[in-house]
Amino acid sequence: MLRPERQTFREGKSILVLAAGLKSVDATASEPSGLDRLLALLGDDLKQVNRLIVEKMHSDVALIPQLAGHIVAAGGKRMRPLLTLAAARLCGYQGTRQHALAACVEFIHTATLLHDDVVDESALRRGRATANAVWGNKASVLVGDFLFSRAFQLMTADGSLAVLKILSDASAVIAEGEVQQLLTANDIETTVEAYLSVIGAKTAALFAAAARIGAVVADRPAADEEALRVYGQALGMAFQLIDDLLDYTAREADLGKSIGDDFRDGKLTLPVVLAIARGSADERAFWRRCLEDQDQQDGDLERAIALCERHGTLAETLALAGRYRDEALAALHRFPQGPIRQAMEEVARFTVDRGY
Amino acid sequence: MLRPERQTFREGKSILVLAAGLKSVDATASEPSGLDRLLALLGDDLKQVNRLIVEKMHSDVALIPQLAGHIVAAGGKRMRPLLTLAAARLCGYQGTRQHALAACVEFIHTATLLHDDVVDESALRRGRATANAVWGNKASVLVGDFLFSRAFQLMTADGSLAVLKILSDASAVIAEGEVQQLLTANDIETTVEAYLSVIGAKTAALFAAAARIGAVVADRPAADEEALRVYGQALGMAFQLIDDLLDYTAREADLGKSIGDDFRDGKLTLPVVLAIARGSADERAFWRRCLEDQDQQDGDLERAIALCERHGTLAETLALAGRYRDEALAALHRFPQGPIRQAMEEVARFTVDRGY
Repeated sequence: MLRPERQTFREGKSILVLAAGLKSVDATASEPSGLDRLLALLGDDLKQVNRLIVEKMHSDVALIPQLAGHIVAAGGKRMRPLLTLAAARLCGYQGTRQHALAACVEFIHTATLLHDDVVDESALRRGRATANAVWGNKASVLVGDFLFSRAFQLMTADGSLAVLKILSDASAVIAEGEVQQLLTANDIETTVEAYLSVIGAKTAALFAAAARIGAVVADRPAADEEALRVYGQALGMAFQLIDDLLDYTAREADLGKSIGDDFRDGKLTLPVVLAIARGSADERAFWRRCLEDQDQQDGDLERAIALCERHGTLAETLALAGRYRDEALAALHRFPQGPIRQAMEEVARFTVDRGY
Repeated sequence: MLRPERQTFREGKSILVLAAGLKSVDATASEPSGLDRLLALLGDDLKQVNRLIVEKMHSDVALIPQLAGHIVAAGGKRMRPLLTLAAARLCGYQGTRQHALAACVEFIHTATLLHDDVVDESALRRGRATANAVWGNKASVLVGDFLFSRAFQLMTADGSLAVLKILSDASAVIAEGEVQQLLTANDIETTVEAYLSVIGAKTAALFAAAARIGAVVADRPAADEEALRVYGQALGMAFQLIDDLLDYTAREADLGKSIGDDFRDGKLTLPVVLAIARGSADERAFWRRCLEDQDQQDGDLERAIALCERHGTLAETLALAGRYRDEALAALHRFPQGPIRQAMEEVARFTVDRGY
C-alpha cells in the first residue's frame, strides 16, 4: 500500500504550507453566529479556555497538536464550550473550574469531528479541507482518540464524578447517535422519529451536557441543572435542524460547507424525510434512485429542493426548529434576568434566524 | 458512493451467517496462552467480567452489540482483564469492584483494536476477518468510540478518581503510541529507541494500567501499585516483542494471523530495525524498496527473514523479551508466594516461551 500522506508527516514545512493554503478557504471566520453578545461577556473566560486547549493539546508526538490544531483552530465558534461558560456564570459561579471543563467539551466535540471525517467523507467542513483529506483516515482516528482521552484526563483532574458521569454518558449517546445515523443513511423508510432520535443523540446531547455542567460546578440544585440541560438539548435540536435545512437552502459562501452534501451522501434529514412521506410513487422512485441507489445526475439536487418546497417541508423544518427555540427560551425563565441570560436567549433566537 | 456493507446492516440474518462463517477461521481458540493456571484460579471472577461485558455492551442501536460482540468474542484471551483480576487477588482484595474495572480494560482494548482495524488494514486479526472488513471503517470507528465511552461510564460508576486517572492517562498514551507508530511506519531510519517507545505506549501502557488498578481497588500502598505497574509494563513489552518476532517466524495456524503482515505493511519492528542497522548498502536498498517504497516481490519476505537470521536479530529480539520477562518476575518478589503469584509468573514465562 502506498501512502501519499507520508511526506506530510515527515516534513514540518509541508504541514505549514498546507495550513497556510487552507486558511484562504476559511469562509466561516466572519460568519455571524449570534454569539457576539455572549463573547463580549465571556471573552476573558474564553481566553482561558483557548489557552488551556492549546496547552492540553500538546504532545511530544508533534503530529498530534499539528493535526488537532488544524481542526480546533479551524474557524470553530466554540459554541459548546461557550455554553458551559455561560451556564456557570448564569448560576452565579465565581470560580474557574468551568475553564478546563469547557476545554473538555471542545475536545470531545473535536474528536467527534475528526471521527466524523472518516465517516462522512465530506469534502469541506467549517470551510476548510477536512483533516482527513489532508492527513488520512488513520491519523484522524488516532488524534481523535487522543483528544477524547485528554478530555477524560482533564475531567479526572477536576475531580467531579457528577461531571464525569454527564460527559461520559453524553459521549456514549453521541456514539450511538452516529451509528444510528449510519444505519438510516440511504434508507428512504427513515421516520421522523428516527431522524429526531439521531440528531438528539449526535448533536443535542453534547449541547445539553455542556450547559448542564455549568450548573454542576456552581453547585446548584437539580432543578437548575435540569433547566440548563433542557436549554442545551433544545438549542442543539434547533441548531441541527437548521444545519440540515441550510444544506438545501444556503449559499455555499454563507454556510462554509458545500450545499447538497447531505443529498449527495444520501442522508435522510428532515426536509427529505417529510418530502418522501408526502411524495407520489414517482417521487418515491426519484428519492430511492438518488438516496438509496446513490445514482444521481445533473439537476437532481434542484429537483429535490423543488420537491421539498412543493411539499412545504423546508418551512416545516424551520417551524420545528422554532418550537425547540421556544423550549430553550422557556427553560431560562427560572434564572434571573440579566446580560448572561439575554445573551443565551439571543443565541437560541439566532440559531433559528439563520435559517431564514 | 456505493455502500456494499448496507445489506449487512439491515439484515440480522446476514450478520449471523457471517459470524458463523468467521468462526471456522478462528485459529486461536485452542492456542495455549500460558493463562491456564490463572484461568483456573480466577474462573469465577472472569465469569462475572464476561457477564458485565455482555451486559454493558448493550445498546438499543443493535449494530453496536453485534459489531462489538464480533470482536469482543473473537477468541480473545482476556489477558488484560485477567491482569486486573489477578492483581486484585494478589493484593488480598476480597471485594468485587475489580470485575467492572476489568471490563473497562477490555472495552478500552477492544476500542483500540476496532480503531486499529481502520488503521492497519490487516486482513486477519485473532484469526477472524476484522470487524472492519465485515462492516466498514465507519462502523468500526463509531463502535470503538461507544466502547471507550462505556468504559468511562463504568469507571465513573465505580467512583475511584485514582482508577480514572490511571486509565485516562493510559488511553492518552496509547493514542500517542499509535500515532507515533504511524510516523515510523515505512521509515527505515526508525531507531531502536523509537520502536521501544512505540510498543511501550501502544501495548505495554494498558498492561501496566490493568495490573496497577488491581492494587488500587485493594487500597494498597504506592509501592505495591508501582510494583504491579512495572510487572504489567514489562510483561506488555515482552508480549509485543514476541508478537513482532512471530510475524517473521510463526506458522500461520499457530499465530492466528498472517505471517509477514508487518513486512507487507512496512512496519519497522525490532527484528528489522536491528537488521537494517547492521545491513550493507545493498541490504539497505532492499529494505528501502520493500518497506519505504512498498515495492515487494515474490521471495522478498523470505529474503527479509534470511537477513534477520544472518544478523542474529530474531535471537536478539527474543533475548530482549527475556530481559523484560525477568523484570516482570522481579517485580512480583515483594508479594507473598502463593498460587496467584505463581500463575502470574507463569504468564510472564509463557509470553516469552511462545517465541521459541
